[in-house]
Amino acid sequence: MCVRLKAIVSYDGSGFSGYQVQPGKRTVQLELERVLGVMHKGESIKVVASGRTDAGVHATGQVIHFDSSLTLPMERWRTALNVQLPGDIRILVVEQVRDDFHARYDATGKTYRYIWSLNEVQSPFERNYSVHVDRNKPNVELMREATVHLLGTHDFSSFCASNTSVKDFVRTIHSVKFEVKKESNQLHMVINGNGFLYNMVRIIAGTLWEIAIGKKSVEEMRTIVDSCDRKRAGKTAPPHGLYLENVEYF
Amino acid sequence: MCVRLKAIVSYDGSGFSGYQVQPGKRTVQLELERVLGVMHKGESIKVVASGRTDAGVHATGQVIHFDSSLTLPMERWRTALNVQLPGDIRILVVEQVRDDFHARYDATGKTYRYIWSLNEVQSPFERNYSVHVDRNKPNVELMREATVHLLGTHDFSSFCASNTSVKDFVRTIHSVKFEVKKESNQLHMVINGNGFLYNMVRIIAGTLWEIAIGKKSVEEMRTIVDSCDRKRAGKTAPPHGLYLENVEYF
Repeated sequence: MCVRLKAIVSYDGSGFSGYQVQPGKRTVQLELERVLGVMHKGESIKVVASGRTDAGVHATGQVIHFDSSLTLPMERWRTALNVQLPGDIRILVVEQVRDDFHARYDATGKTYRYIWSLNEVQSPFERNYSVHVDRNKPNVELMREATVHLLGTHDFSSFCASNTSVKDFVRTIHSVKFEVKKESNQLHMVINGNGFLYNMVRIIAGTLWEIAIGKKSVEEMRTIVDSCDRKRAGKTAPPHGLYLENVEYF
Repeated sequence: MCVRLKAIVSYDGSGFSGYQVQPGKRTVQLELERVLGVMHKGESIKVVASGRTDAGVHATGQVIHFDSSLTLPMERWRTALNVQLPGDIRILVVEQVRDDFHARYDATGKTYRYIWSLNEVQSPFERNYSVHVDRNKPNVELMREATVHLLGTHDFSSFCASNTSVKDFVRTIHSVKFEVKKESNQLHMVINGNGFLYNMVRIIAGTLWEIAIGKKSVEEMRTIVDSCDRKRAGKTAPPHGLYLENVEYF
């Protein structure tokens, strides 16, 4: 008998060429399918994720599903996977779901986190896990004000990388929050929405950063959204500051 | 004219075969001397540290000194070094010191930090930066009680790796503190003394851990110290939980 399993996965994106399988590259999907293949005595097990992440992007709450005919008690699954996976991928939760659960199509929302390090000298321990922006003190209040123009349902073409096959650019952003971390001297942006276009969070982060340092005005954010023109928005912020934190399902 | 410079250095030990130069290995000293060599147009610049650290051990406050005949304004030194150093080494502070300052011989005290991760599943982001000990909940109160036998001046032969050339095993420990970090679910030990023998902090950490999980009693710590016998103490705790945090000078 075959069951469908859902797992929550955390990975350090530093050592991967992104999530999705690519010929000759080390990817998260490759490692997951390799370990499942071993567990299933060579049978090829297809893993479906809520979405791909780019090279260098991290996850603390990626969601995957796969089917298995193994007779393994549910509480043993997590350890069975973790003992075989490399240390930069950890399975946090495994549970059985209904047979038609789909990690990608059933996702109703996602939360991403973006981290800037404001330290004068970036700590070596942060270098792969936050984006260093020492020369400019950000005005977080301006970032907060600018998010007003992002909230709600919009055509987000201006915040989508050009190399996409997507036809529908309309998405809904529910919240954008900022956390100033005193101890580590970091700025975190936490963004939640019903879905995100390719590079959308990184382009939003890059644009908000330009507003934070006075390179763009708060009002410009409205013009950028309305223009539906990628060239109007700011630079795509680097991948290693980005974390896929949570995927929501009904 | 030649000046002596003191620098505070932070490094992520994960990618290094320790601090000290070894043939054919990537070490922190090698990288520092390589960059100084480039800055001095090929002149060989010898770097002296407060002490070496083993492979995998980190530093947030290692101290070095070196001599330079470069005419570079003092405030430009830090950036000049950091732009050429790899990202896993960062210079935090550079200052001119008297010509006979010695990073090793003048050190009057050191502080080390040891980090245990108590998470059920270790986060991929912690794997090189803390030691994972999920199966046992430590009794931190027992650890605190046991440190009474370590404080003060003792012959610490029991806590010294056998492969050492040191003759005098007497050291003074000023304080051992424990911090329970709720958010990250980590236990930190912060230990300060006038000097530490080879592997001394890691053997202390390993012994205190065995007390914390009931494998050794609090009273046994006294016997271990008195015995001057390495075989009585606990296992050497792994290197990647250890940080050289501060070096004191008069």
